[in-house]
Amino acid sequence: MKFTDKLAYAAKKNKSLVCVGLDPDPVLMPPGISVLEFNMQIISATYDLVCCYKPNFAFYEALGLGGMDALKKTIKFVPKDIPVIGDAKRGDIGNTAKAYAKALFEYYGCDAATVSPYLGFDSLEPFINYKDKGVFILCRTSNAGGADFQGLKIIPMSNTTNTTNNSINKPRVEESLFEYVAEKSAEWNKYGNIGLVVGATYPEELKLIRQSHPEMLLLIPGIGAQGGDLETVLHNGLNSNKEGAIINSSRQIIYASKGKDFAEAARKVAGELRDSINKYRFRI
Amino acid sequence: MKFTDKLAYAAKKNKSLVCVGLDPDPVLMPPGISVLEFNMQIISATYDLVCCYKPNFAFYEALGLGGMDALKKTIKFVPKDIPVIGDAKRGDIGNTAKAYAKALFEYYGCDAATVSPYLGFDSLEPFINYKDKGVFILCRTSNAGGADFQGLKIIPMSNTTNTTNNSINKPRVEESLFEYVAEKSAEWNKYGNIGLVVGATYPEELKLIRQSHPEMLLLIPGIGAQGGDLETVLHNGLNSNKEGAIINSSRQIIYASKGKDFAEAARKVAGELRDSINKYRFRI
Repeated sequence: MKFTDKLAYAAKKNKSLVCVGLDPDPVLMPPGISVLEFNMQIISATYDLVCCYKPNFAFYEALGLGGMDALKKTIKFVPKDIPVIGDAKRGDIGNTAKAYAKALFEYYGCDAATVSPYLGFDSLEPFINYKDKGVFILCRTSNAGGADFQGLKIIPMSNTTNTTNNSINKPRVEESLFEYVAEKSAEWNKYGNIGLVVGATYPEELKLIRQSHPEMLLLIPGIGAQGGDLETVLHNGLNSNKEGAIINSSRQIIYASKGKDFAEAARKVAGELRDSINKYRFRI
Repeated sequence: MKFTDKLAYAAKKNKSLVCVGLDPDPVLMPPGISVLEFNMQIISATYDLVCCYKPNFAFYEALGLGGMDALKKTIKFVPKDIPVIGDAKRGDIGNTAKAYAKALFEYYGCDAATVSPYLGFDSLEPFINYKDKGVFILCRTSNAGGADFQGLKIIPMSNTTNTTNNSINKPRVEESLFEYVAEKSAEWNKYGNIGLVVGATYPEELKLIRQSHPEMLLLIPGIGAQGGDLETVLHNGLNSNKEGAIINSSRQIIYASKGKDFAEAARKVAGELRDSINKYRFRI
């Protein structure tokens, strides 16, 4: 089943745009529980409240082979009708990107993956060529350092030829790198399987992206622990049907409690987030 | 021991700037041999001809847990005085980058890592903070798509304020994104552990980087299978002491033969590459 169809189905069935980030950190988890058991309990407590799950590979890699084993088993444990986004932010040259795509989609069985655009089209193509899988290209990330390069003003390629002699006196359209990444991503979206990662912490940038790309699927992290304001994010990030965005929350949900009631607490917070989003969407 | 010291020591002892890329691909490897055995034989045949090894994580991830196990054991098998660069091109927000740095430096035991700059300083800082480890920031990559974003003309941040009204008629210094990434990397290099990845396939860009950063350590892939011309690369990439660069070759060395003599063949090609480089360096 195509990622986008699976996502739409889950979002409809569970009336939810919530994605739960499965980012296990032994320091924050309840004591004495394994990563796999922790994830299984979180999933069991929330699978009817979400449209997808998003494990970030870093937290599993940091735990070594045991962590990667838990990751694979976690993905397998997610109900078949809920898609899983492998948040790995990979990006390498074509030959190598192919190996990463194989790892994420075939070995770990992810329905979608996040990828980093710095190496350009041929580094993303091996992912995009899995037509049934989703590919979320990093556009404007939620961290403070995101602006270091993503926020740079650039001169689009088409305007860079022959600029030396005669264009200094002409006004030029200047846009930020992240806007250009969004444009190229839209251009490369021939299979309709590309989405963009745009952080909740930069609502104005989110607005710009949504305005330029009314139908693009957006993966929006940064709500909750990172401080993004929900109502502004929904206002700026949803499409005209009040959908087309995945709202991710990780720490605020999975670490809602450090006690034995952690799964129950996670369910409560996930449900509240779903309801807050729907309240905005459906003006309940 | 600091990565830079370990690298300098190995380069001096083996009179070599050659890095062998350990990128196991079952399709290209001799039949019937495991990844670990393949790597062990390559390392045993070449460790006195190189200044470092560079396993690319993608090829191990594509093989699942068994691949990651072989990666860990491969790194452990490398002689203690030869540094290992974990080519993983990671890049994520601070909290998550910390987990990736832990995986690469602590779990897998790499002496250095490659990282992707798109997410900015706070995504690189957790790597840089391992002061004894090396951090190679992707600058101008060897693939064709590298130009898609890295080659964009940008307006440096310091010039972007108040551009709207009065600067259209003024000439501005325009540089490419990859040059700006190099500048920022140099600015962030307070511990002296940062290097840049610059592909051999773009010698003019390599020259620009070397001119602007005479002492920066450069990791240069793209010789051999990717087609970079050795002499031009050395001319443009070495520092004034005819060092300061790591010349990586992967496929041309490790797949020199698909027969039982693969390790011997790898040794021959690695030795020839070392000698060609030294011929240029020392004008033998």
